[in-house]
Amino acid sequence: MRIPLDSSDPLPLYRQVVNHLRTAILSGSLPEGTQLPSTRQLAGELNLSRITIKNAYDVLSGEGLISGREGSGTYVSRYTTANARRQVDEKQPWPLWQQELALNEAPAPDRFLPARAKVSEELISFSGVGSPTYYPVQDVYKALQTVIRRERAGAFEYGDLRQGYLPLRQTISHVLGSQCISAGPEEILITSGSQQALALVCQALLKAGDTILVESPTYNLALELFEALHLKIISLPVDANGMQVEALEEMLQKHHPRLIYTIPNFQNPSGMSLSEPRRRQMISLAERYNVPILEDDFAGDLRYEGRVLPALKTLDPCGLVIYIGTFSKMLMPGLRLGFLIAGGPVLPLLIQYKRVNDLTTSPLIQRAVCEYVTVGSYQVHLRRSCRLYLKQRNTLLQALDQELGERVDFNIPQGGLFLWLKLAGNISSTSLREQAIREGVDFTPGQHFFIQAQDGNAYLRLNFASLSPPAILAGIQRLAKSLDRFK
Amino acid sequence: MRIPLDSSDPLPLYRQVVNHLRTAILSGSLPEGTQLPSTRQLAGELNLSRITIKNAYDVLSGEGLISGREGSGTYVSRYTTANARRQVDEKQPWPLWQQELALNEAPAPDRFLPARAKVSEELISFSGVGSPTYYPVQDVYKALQTVIRRERAGAFEYGDLRQGYLPLRQTISHVLGSQCISAGPEEILITSGSQQALALVCQALLKAGDTILVESPTYNLALELFEALHLKIISLPVDANGMQVEALEEMLQKHHPRLIYTIPNFQNPSGMSLSEPRRRQMISLAERYNVPILEDDFAGDLRYEGRVLPALKTLDPCGLVIYIGTFSKMLMPGLRLGFLIAGGPVLPLLIQYKRVNDLTTSPLIQRAVCEYVTVGSYQVHLRRSCRLYLKQRNTLLQALDQELGERVDFNIPQGGLFLWLKLAGNISSTSLREQAIREGVDFTPGQHFFIQAQDGNAYLRLNFASLSPPAILAGIQRLAKSLDRFK
Repeated sequence: MRIPLDSSDPLPLYRQVVNHLRTAILSGSLPEGTQLPSTRQLAGELNLSRITIKNAYDVLSGEGLISGREGSGTYVSRYTTANARRQVDEKQPWPLWQQELALNEAPAPDRFLPARAKVSEELISFSGVGSPTYYPVQDVYKALQTVIRRERAGAFEYGDLRQGYLPLRQTISHVLGSQCISAGPEEILITSGSQQALALVCQALLKAGDTILVESPTYNLALELFEALHLKIISLPVDANGMQVEALEEMLQKHHPRLIYTIPNFQNPSGMSLSEPRRRQMISLAERYNVPILEDDFAGDLRYEGRVLPALKTLDPCGLVIYIGTFSKMLMPGLRLGFLIAGGPVLPLLIQYKRVNDLTTSPLIQRAVCEYVTVGSYQVHLRRSCRLYLKQRNTLLQALDQELGERVDFNIPQGGLFLWLKLAGNISSTSLREQAIREGVDFTPGQHFFIQAQDGNAYLRLNFASLSPPAILAGIQRLAKSLDRFK
Repeated sequence: MRIPLDSSDPLPLYRQVVNHLRTAILSGSLPEGTQLPSTRQLAGELNLSRITIKNAYDVLSGEGLISGREGSGTYVSRYTTANARRQVDEKQPWPLWQQELALNEAPAPDRFLPARAKVSEELISFSGVGSPTYYPVQDVYKALQTVIRRERAGAFEYGDLRQGYLPLRQTISHVLGSQCISAGPEEILITSGSQQALALVCQALLKAGDTILVESPTYNLALELFEALHLKIISLPVDANGMQVEALEEMLQKHHPRLIYTIPNFQNPSGMSLSEPRRRQMISLAERYNVPILEDDFAGDLRYEGRVLPALKTLDPCGLVIYIGTFSKMLMPGLRLGFLIAGGPVLPLLIQYKRVNDLTTSPLIQRAVCEYVTVGSYQVHLRRSCRLYLKQRNTLLQALDQELGERVDFNIPQGGLFLWLKLAGNISSTSLREQAIREGVDFTPGQHFFIQAQDGNAYLRLNFASLSPPAILAGIQRLAKSLDRFK
């Protein structure tokens, strides 16, 4: 048996033998059942001491890769390679670079709320995203059919590896135009959901250690992104008129953030919208202090009442604002289709980062959404959703008033998906959640939405868009019952 | 007219007036046709000199936002906001951060070959990816139907926001098992194509300025990714046995790369495979020098002849190798579905980067591919593709022999999609391409695949998988004709 040993290698010789034999066994060059030379024989061949070979065989035996049979020598174990590998993975130390990763690069806190295993079919969950009941499944299915029948293999080719499917960008331009946001198809970049748009903007504008200014509370998966990218996150609180822009100038002077991240409409999780004077003030400060604004308009068109407010993008005099939109909330989250709008030198950079990150968003899904949205179904679906969600919100307001009264505090959202509830007294929403699950109701605890998790102790987010009015009523009754335990 | 002016602002007062009025006009607060105060009147109201106001009006007039009518005052122009915006975008200087981006952060060279506008329907293109003719469109369509009919709205929900749809990971585990690569579903992360897998590994392991070692030549969009991330790229040449690993140790000692990127099977663009001794040597050096290996196996299962070589992942004793695979090449590029396999502390980090980058790859596409692949169609499709591609490769070899003879040099690929051609004499493949397009044939010039573009002057890449045998023959005849011009 020829094992290439390297005496200049700092790795002890017995480990060199172990590594060589292990590789040979795992790769199948030494198949199951092969007899290995005796320790004496191998020691002779390699010009090593017998104890070195014995040590090596002991390690391999401990890993389950070989086994000695009394009086009849040592054999490669009759494991499948798959099983052996799994065994080894548990015993063999990871390479140093992996061990260093484990020490220095632990993942940021996971701010995604895992789906609860349903304790019963009856669990009423206020923690979803949209309402599957209202997904236009049939329409999108028809659109998929039409696209595949019409374009056949063409629907599965790469398509435009730059900004995305042009007809879809034209459609988005029209839809935005109807919301008084003017953007030509050449300013639009199709992304895999708004999350990717966020990530691309960070890649293009920020590096580890840079400061980003956000609202507090804010979207949990944006926080997780910023943490994963090792950004320094600072925040301004949100009130009933959105981010408290009055304190923005001081923050800009003091902390020099490289980006302002804001959700001006029906903010996630607070449900509040940034007032028009604050929008103008934010734009003016961003211009004066030379800071880009990232406007996340994830649900801006889901307004049920009140006056439409101008998008920051609309107030932008000179390419300060990068605007992000999505089809996830209005249509279906699983489409994974979003877009951003930008002008100036940042746009080609964003286009490049999109391409090197994943070449392109599924051309099939781009075509299908384009097919669906152009037939006018989008507007119909939007009106229908707004009507339903308004009814659900009103049911929620009534239920909160009836069932919880003084025990909670909140502002009324004029649109979107979320109501942000503050618990009176000293009750933590995570403790409440444990009780609530037992009572058959779930929600998203506030901690996920704050830089310092404990700042969210008193809060919880309710998604009223994903439940029917009777479910909302029953859910709040259960929540009230859970709160009773904390009296 | 109340314009908030700030005398402490370094911006000249006339520019402050311009900005305010522009914002008001573009946002629609000063609608088209509105009469503005005279310069005298506004100067009085704001306590400024008339010349300041006149300067401001001149700028706005130059931008097309307002226009003066002789003797009857100044009015907001009758532009649509959209048109006005576009006008302004061209005139108004970008904010400073954008100008700095333009100076310091110009996109890396675009290494993607844009689709040629077909000079005629007759253009024969050797520059494609797979062959649309062989895409299993009908099967995938049926799988989409089945999934949507069975799961309805469920097919459009987020699904697993961690590693991807479990049944698909189980399927991938089975498919890989049949290729002697053992990986459990818990080691697999679903990505949006293999490009995203590449990008995630870079995010998890590298930062700007780090060194990466690649093959030369190598995959053009990997190079573009590494350049966009500001990595320092070093390379080892490829010969008929893949990367010249004999020189690897010296490179590791000298340049301390943080990652080795290799395409061991039917390398893109060279078509060559890494020999087994070199594979073992690479693994052993990577272990000794503590460097992770990124194994891009984009077409490993497309082998037409010769003996299967063990994947680096299979030879990996302890979590050194991150393996990347894709369904793009074998099924259809537009699916945007790939995966990576990793073990150890790097896996949770990769999972987190996937989630913060785009939450999840389209759950619908994940389910549809899973549906299709489990019915065994994948293996059938694979055999069929290999049979066809082999025939096409043989046609290409024959045509090259017949038509080009001594004028080109190449090694014979045993699988994959590409043949890498070296032009004899001093002919540049970009000049040849211009001529070739005129003759009705296209290919990918070699420059895209080298760190220093000019190193690829003498080379071109032919994709023989996307053309029928008669088209291949005709294409090479046209190529020969184009080469005649360079005698």
